[in-house]
Amino acid sequence: MLNYQLPLDLAFQALCDPARRSILDRLSEGPASVSELAKPLPMSLPAVMLHLKVLEESGLVKTSKSGRVRTCRLEPKLLSQAERWIAERRQMWERNLDRLGTYLDEGE
Amino acid sequence: MLNYQLPLDLAFQALCDPARRSILDRLSEGPASVSELAKPLPMSLPAVMLHLKVLEESGLVKTSKSGRVRTCRLEPKLLSQAERWIAERRQMWERNLDRLGTYLDEGE
Repeated sequence: MLNYQLPLDLAFQALCDPARRSILDRLSEGPASVSELAKPLPMSLPAVMLHLKVLEESGLVKTSKSGRVRTCRLEPKLLSQAERWIAERRQMWERNLDRLGTYLDEGE
Repeated sequence: MLNYQLPLDLAFQALCDPARRSILDRLSEGPASVSELAKPLPMSLPAVMLHLKVLEESGLVKTSKSGRVRTCRLEPKLLSQAERWIAERRQMWERNLDRLGTYLDEGE
């Protein structure tokens, strides 16, 4: 049994919450401060910071502090890896469906 | 606050476990019985069935029973939706990076 979490485990775990997806959505437009990220979310600042912690630990987001402002940035590498994992399975599924179609056509 | 789970919550929650990704990987090649899915996994049949339950409840997998054999199939719709969600954010991030590059070039 695997007793550690793989990067994709952490990525999908981070993506499964609507507040965290909303934060990623905003960060896809460019860097933002924690308070900018918190503004549209219906929750307290500490709750937003917990979501940011999950995103940062997953590797989907990086943060840096300058003075009193913490700026958050999207890190696209793991996001691309998660996208690729899904795309490959979807494509494999479609290829097999096409193959089945060809097989059925030839059998007519 | 949202007190129900959205389809994307369930999809990413299902995807965050390596055993469940392994099952989806196998199902992308075509339908399989529960025992075929269980064979390569280092866990008990009841554990595999719990993972299948999560996958079925998410909508990523459908199962049907014929006699004593339960056959599992990948349902590509939600998988595509999850892929699209990620792809759109990644593309938005890249567009904004390009725009920043153009802005910096113009400033030289």
